[in-house]
Amino acid sequence: MALVVQKFGGTSVADLERIRTVAARIKRSREEGDQIAVVVSAMAGTTNQLVDWVTEIGGPHYDHAEYDVVVASGEQVTVGLLALALHAQGLPARSFLGWQAPVRTDGTHGRARIAVLEAARLRACLERGDIVVLAGFQGVSADDRVTTLGRGGSDTSAVALAAALGAERCDIFTDVDGVYTSDPRIVAKAHRLDRVTYEEMLEMASLGAKVLETRSVALAMQSGVRIQVLSSFVDGTGTLVVDEDEIVEKQIVSGIAYSRDEAKITLIGVPDRPGVAATIFGPLAEANINVDMIVQSVSADGETADLTFTVGRGDLARTTGALEAVRDQLGYREIATDGEVVKVSVIGVGMRSHAGTAHTMFSTLAERGINIQAISTSEIKISVLIDEAYTELALRALHTAYGLDAT
Amino acid sequence: MALVVQKFGGTSVADLERIRTVAARIKRSREEGDQIAVVVSAMAGTTNQLVDWVTEIGGPHYDHAEYDVVVASGEQVTVGLLALALHAQGLPARSFLGWQAPVRTDGTHGRARIAVLEAARLRACLERGDIVVLAGFQGVSADDRVTTLGRGGSDTSAVALAAALGAERCDIFTDVDGVYTSDPRIVAKAHRLDRVTYEEMLEMASLGAKVLETRSVALAMQSGVRIQVLSSFVDGTGTLVVDEDEIVEKQIVSGIAYSRDEAKITLIGVPDRPGVAATIFGPLAEANINVDMIVQSVSADGETADLTFTVGRGDLARTTGALEAVRDQLGYREIATDGEVVKVSVIGVGMRSHAGTAHTMFSTLAERGINIQAISTSEIKISVLIDEAYTELALRALHTAYGLDAT
Repeated sequence: MALVVQKFGGTSVADLERIRTVAARIKRSREEGDQIAVVVSAMAGTTNQLVDWVTEIGGPHYDHAEYDVVVASGEQVTVGLLALALHAQGLPARSFLGWQAPVRTDGTHGRARIAVLEAARLRACLERGDIVVLAGFQGVSADDRVTTLGRGGSDTSAVALAAALGAERCDIFTDVDGVYTSDPRIVAKAHRLDRVTYEEMLEMASLGAKVLETRSVALAMQSGVRIQVLSSFVDGTGTLVVDEDEIVEKQIVSGIAYSRDEAKITLIGVPDRPGVAATIFGPLAEANINVDMIVQSVSADGETADLTFTVGRGDLARTTGALEAVRDQLGYREIATDGEVVKVSVIGVGMRSHAGTAHTMFSTLAERGINIQAISTSEIKISVLIDEAYTELALRALHTAYGLDAT
Repeated sequence: MALVVQKFGGTSVADLERIRTVAARIKRSREEGDQIAVVVSAMAGTTNQLVDWVTEIGGPHYDHAEYDVVVASGEQVTVGLLALALHAQGLPARSFLGWQAPVRTDGTHGRARIAVLEAARLRACLERGDIVVLAGFQGVSADDRVTTLGRGGSDTSAVALAAALGAERCDIFTDVDGVYTSDPRIVAKAHRLDRVTYEEMLEMASLGAKVLETRSVALAMQSGVRIQVLSSFVDGTGTLVVDEDEIVEKQIVSGIAYSRDEAKITLIGVPDRPGVAATIFGPLAEANINVDMIVQSVSADGETADLTFTVGRGDLARTTGALEAVRDQLGYREIATDGEVVKVSVIGVGMRSHAGTAHTMFSTLAERGINIQAISTSEIKISVLIDEAYTELALRALHTAYGLDAT
């Protein structure tokens, strides 16, 4: 008898009918002999409504501790309703809120981190034969206040629960039936991956393939929890996110991801002297702005340089503001910005042991006349910044070039 | 500096605008120098919606523990939002859920009783100068599960909080501006009472003047908490519910209440032998049916009797069912039922020391040709059962007869 954690997101529990469907699905798993612990999100739309109320009544500088109290109520409703739906199907079940497990977190309200998920109560409940239904997204701080884990935190709750219980697997039920080689809405020939490694999934998650939240994948990798991503609406096996050892035939490239959440900033005519980069990025770090790709090019006169880098599109105004504030100190000539860029990435653990992956990418884009504005690489990823207008063309061309097209 | 508990019901916090109004009201009380602890209900309509979901998904025999989890989420939203609204007005405030105070209750889910409201945390919060915002209606059982106190339970939460904190007064803000001598929708000349005793209020609460929940009045009487009932929408002093000693000029009759939630049952031809009443009411007690007024009349033949009594209208079918089941044992001839009756009561602590109150009632009704079908009395109350069609006539006539008409 395997112990499996199943997580259902907001669209899977959006109304009573869907909650009943989830209960029926859990029943089937039970009948196959598994012990089940479930993690659920709030009904789709509920969290947004609650957040709107908080910001409307609390103003821009609202108290994050009270935000957590209000927003955590959404999962409270769904755990109770799902437990009731399971009872109605003749299954013993019991709900647990974050403070009841307890899921202990730090006190960073609004985006708390799980310190320890205490599983003794939950395990006792499972051993009595009950299905555990844990509220995702929420926990309790050391001083007994409600905390939430931030958007997508229910995935992290599920992985933490699987780790704490030593579960065989963590099934993440969502509105897609797995992880694809690229976004199927753009690349018609994209196909579902049977398996993907944690590291690949991490790159995909952080690059805008919004199937799993980044933190949950990192936690799964760290604690060795096998994740299965599958559809709540269509039966099937989905995609397994596992350790590299579990994948026998490694592809060089597993997927092509993209992120539109990028903005490019170029500082033109920066004096070319040691320490200038620190002077530039210091104020941005202080303002909590994440800088991603960085390209420095020496100008023709040999005395100044142009510095190009990217930030999240939402941080663009704050970034230029922070740089204007230290203009005299930096001595640059001009700031140029471009919000119409996209970052396209090819990802695959296989490229570690295979040369030529970058060459394929650059030549494929060059053949289509797509100009590369910046490049960044990691061991298992090559990212390029291009004009947003070429997004679809680039994705499809790369998908074909790396032999990923479905047959 | 007085410590005052203020309770705001569902209509007072029905939307963000009203929550802001409540915050402004609390601010005024603070500016008058009071320390404030607040108890709030869920937004009007929310609890009904949640209950509907529970019964729809859980079926008729739903688990009351999970019901409590779902339904308690309503107050969780309003305490957080009210704390945020207070912050927005520049006031320090902090929300507390039932388990956080904690409000310890027994484990009777759906209608739990408060065992002890632990006030140490709340008092520490008040002493720091913060406004305490406690979720009404909810508590926590000995095994750390969420409990709710049943409908109207927020009044009880507020009185328990006032008792635990030794508050000067418990202000219950509601959609009426106080306690009236009768229902103003029926008796145009009804006027607001400045003061009313706990005992009178108890009779009025249990008789359908739905201003305060009965349990909260009983608890206030027992713990000596002074209640003030006042409007959340109109400024004014409302009605004080206090000990008899605090009322100098006692009226003989303080109010005329009525309850349409009555049904009359007559067992005709019951053998007139000792113990027959026990045989009749035993099965009803077992079925948890409350019997109110009882009239026994010996029939002409001297060997059988007719027995008339009243039950809640919702219990009528169950009552006749229970009696049919033991028909052979009881040996009655016939059951007659009447759902179109109303119970009208005159209430006043003054009648203890004043004869003739009953006479005034009976003769006033007789003059209008209103037949009395049953009578019950207590030290401070006389109730009669009459044909429902005469409700308005009876209320107005009695209101005038006891000198209660507003001048």
